[in-house]
Amino acid sequence: MNPRLSKSDMLVLCIARTAPIRIIVIVENMDKVLGFIKENEQRFLDELIEFLKFESVSTQKARQPEVERCAEWLADNMRNAGIENVELIKTKTNPLVYGDFIHAGNDKPTVLIYGHYDVQPEDPVDLWDSPPFEPEVRNGNLYGRGTADDKGQVFTHVKALEAFIKSGENPGVNVKFIIEGEEESGSYAMTDYLMGSPDKISCDAILISDTSWFSDDIASITYGLRGITGLEIKVIGPNRDLHSGTYGGGIENPLNALCGIVSQLHDRYGRVTVPGFYDGIQELTQQEKDNFASLPHSDAEYAKDLDVPMVHGEAGWGTLERISVRPTLDLNGMYGGYTGDGHKSIIPSYAVAKMTMRIVPGQKWEDIQQRTADYIKAIAPPTVKIEVHPEHGGNPVVAPLDSPGIKAAAKAMEVAFGKQVVFTREGGSIPIVELFQDKLSAPAVMMGFGLDSDNIHSPNEKFKLTHFYGGINASAIFMDEYSKSSK
Amino acid sequence: MNPRLSKSDMLVLCIARTAPIRIIVIVENMDKVLGFIKENEQRFLDELIEFLKFESVSTQKARQPEVERCAEWLADNMRNAGIENVELIKTKTNPLVYGDFIHAGNDKPTVLIYGHYDVQPEDPVDLWDSPPFEPEVRNGNLYGRGTADDKGQVFTHVKALEAFIKSGENPGVNVKFIIEGEEESGSYAMTDYLMGSPDKISCDAILISDTSWFSDDIASITYGLRGITGLEIKVIGPNRDLHSGTYGGGIENPLNALCGIVSQLHDRYGRVTVPGFYDGIQELTQQEKDNFASLPHSDAEYAKDLDVPMVHGEAGWGTLERISVRPTLDLNGMYGGYTGDGHKSIIPSYAVAKMTMRIVPGQKWEDIQQRTADYIKAIAPPTVKIEVHPEHGGNPVVAPLDSPGIKAAAKAMEVAFGKQVVFTREGGSIPIVELFQDKLSAPAVMMGFGLDSDNIHSPNEKFKLTHFYGGINASAIFMDEYSKSSK
Repeated sequence: MNPRLSKSDMLVLCIARTAPIRIIVIVENMDKVLGFIKENEQRFLDELIEFLKFESVSTQKARQPEVERCAEWLADNMRNAGIENVELIKTKTNPLVYGDFIHAGNDKPTVLIYGHYDVQPEDPVDLWDSPPFEPEVRNGNLYGRGTADDKGQVFTHVKALEAFIKSGENPGVNVKFIIEGEEESGSYAMTDYLMGSPDKISCDAILISDTSWFSDDIASITYGLRGITGLEIKVIGPNRDLHSGTYGGGIENPLNALCGIVSQLHDRYGRVTVPGFYDGIQELTQQEKDNFASLPHSDAEYAKDLDVPMVHGEAGWGTLERISVRPTLDLNGMYGGYTGDGHKSIIPSYAVAKMTMRIVPGQKWEDIQQRTADYIKAIAPPTVKIEVHPEHGGNPVVAPLDSPGIKAAAKAMEVAFGKQVVFTREGGSIPIVELFQDKLSAPAVMMGFGLDSDNIHSPNEKFKLTHFYGGINASAIFMDEYSKSSK
Repeated sequence: MNPRLSKSDMLVLCIARTAPIRIIVIVENMDKVLGFIKENEQRFLDELIEFLKFESVSTQKARQPEVERCAEWLADNMRNAGIENVELIKTKTNPLVYGDFIHAGNDKPTVLIYGHYDVQPEDPVDLWDSPPFEPEVRNGNLYGRGTADDKGQVFTHVKALEAFIKSGENPGVNVKFIIEGEEESGSYAMTDYLMGSPDKISCDAILISDTSWFSDDIASITYGLRGITGLEIKVIGPNRDLHSGTYGGGIENPLNALCGIVSQLHDRYGRVTVPGFYDGIQELTQQEKDNFASLPHSDAEYAKDLDVPMVHGEAGWGTLERISVRPTLDLNGMYGGYTGDGHKSIIPSYAVAKMTMRIVPGQKWEDIQQRTADYIKAIAPPTVKIEVHPEHGGNPVVAPLDSPGIKAAAKAMEVAFGKQVVFTREGGSIPIVELFQDKLSAPAVMMGFGLDSDNIHSPNEKFKLTHFYGGINASAIFMDEYSKSSK
């Protein structure tokens, strides 16, 4: 899948696609850089395996020393790569790993590479085919916790920059790294650090490789993410569980009341009924509409994969749009009364529902949370008491599709992988991305190398080797392409 | 609270009440019987304490030998009381204790006394002020598991009949006992036994003391019980929990779908919407309406006791009627998705609701269950799969208010306790009662001596000593009064 490189001054790459063949020109110095990468593939893989052996699970207090050791190892690796000013920035929790290589000149753009060296817990261990912290190559994939999320992806950029430095070439852009150790447990230190808009990580683009492709065959650049906000609702009825025979018919049942509230949160067209919920949502551009129209999708296959009778959602929008650019309100959990085996004939004392709203550009999480809470209180029946507890949230992100970084990333992906590249907005949320854009006044470029089949957060997490090597190439080509844009 | 008895031939009892004083005449032989009870109160209490020490918890397999020993003890006590033909009727599970005293002649009615010698589990033991199986008298109450439910109430009848026998008096009615050991765990043996309509327990009235008074100051005879039936509904969505960011908006959320179904089960007037749900319900007689009107009740106090903002239920009916003579549909439990602390932003794979319908005379449990299941399937959205699992049920009971047994019981309660006696229909269900009435073709007489404050099924279960002694008197007076009725 990697581009085949000739030794000529001007390299001509012919990429086979269903689309017409394009001729892409890469300047001479890239020949050396990409050659270096090719020659060092095995060493890069061996180093990544060392990186992956650290059990840097940030959600588990007991493993905090291991998280620190992992950060130190990464810093050392970056120093050995030739990256400069490497340091561990101390925080209240896990250190941020910083490094830079600023030799392109003031007139060239600066890219900040963000990622994380912490990983998800490995449970349930029984379901792994090989030990989660003893990485193993099988069938062209590297298996292990953190391979795709996010150590493997972070490492592509470290190795790409190393390829420039060790080849004696200049990447053409100024490069900074900020790699955090707490992304899987709230990004609190990263958030604190960003709140000061630190000049140390000022940049013209934020490059993030922590997303997945649209499909195994279609590479994608993510330029939008939904935001998120949540509420927990507690409907409070009688001061104790009551016998449903003795008291049934006497008072409101909190579970029935909660179901009544929830059922009023959508209308018959699948729209959220909270007043003002859709106010101000940014309309799709013609380019975005064309993008959606061009993406392959089958509702029947989608439903079949999930084993549901049919797709469902807001009327007037296709499934791909509904799961990415339209806001939603979903119950994540609900409970009340007796939930064990068999029956217990009670009227429960209370009932609880947990819900999240996914929001899109034009919506703000605090506003949507407040509106939803107000509406729920307004429609709550007078027969019960109600508590509405807010959860933390994050705003949606949309990066300009015409930013130089996005264009460079698309070209880099296309060249490195020889695949069609599409621009997508994802339904999930990475709240820190919006903060990066806001505090550094720079657009995010989400050039991810993962696949949906990589089992991130699950047993048997993997990273395709061609995506690891292709990712290093893509990162190098990105730097080269981005260097051609004006600052 | 016990009637004070003179030694004269004709006993005149003056009972102080808010109602006009009545003169009640008790014939001479009752003087001896009630005197015997008075003299033996302490011994009866000591024997009851022995009865209560057996840990006859029928829901716990390990305690089955203890349940058997309890049955044997009861049988011995009945034999010592002079009761005849006492035997343990073997069943697949716990034995039924039978005994009789048939000396009133064929022209006199036969009363069958039904009750149970098994008890609820004592958990949580920590919350008991004295050990549950070491009964203790405090402040005029006997504390211990089974005191009110139902050993103490069963024992009143054994001791009442003993008082006749040991005084050399004839109770005037033929008496049979059938005391089961499995009431708290399904009454399966009793049900099996009844299905054969056994001649051994044929009777003219079934006397049951396993209910509570309307209030501490108002004694009551229960002449009706609601029936019960239940369903468990499972709404099935995607084949796995889904990330609510990646999939939110793509498909129906099973929790939202279940809330939608539940919210359609009542209309805005609090009526159950299942087609035909109210068909054929027996109307209240004028006497019943007058009864309800005469009962003291305050919605404000009722709501205050339960700490709810207001009462609620089917429009057009008072609270006392809604909780006893009107059918209901209540959720007993519901769950789906993430129910732990904090948030997990998923679309759950499925959602479950458990519900019971309390039904009233004119409704049949199988019919209501079927109608409700059919309706739920009919209104379930096409976007999910649905499973409806039926639970076992029992039909409602209403005993004729003008049966000689009911009249005798009312008189007996009034004399024994010197309290106003009211006739009530209870909202709870004792499915076996309907089977007794049906299989033995005899009316039930529910003359209970418990109080709502007796903590049955809870820690610190108790039985008021005046209710134990008064219950023995009431049972004796009932036999005497009932003997005056034609068979």
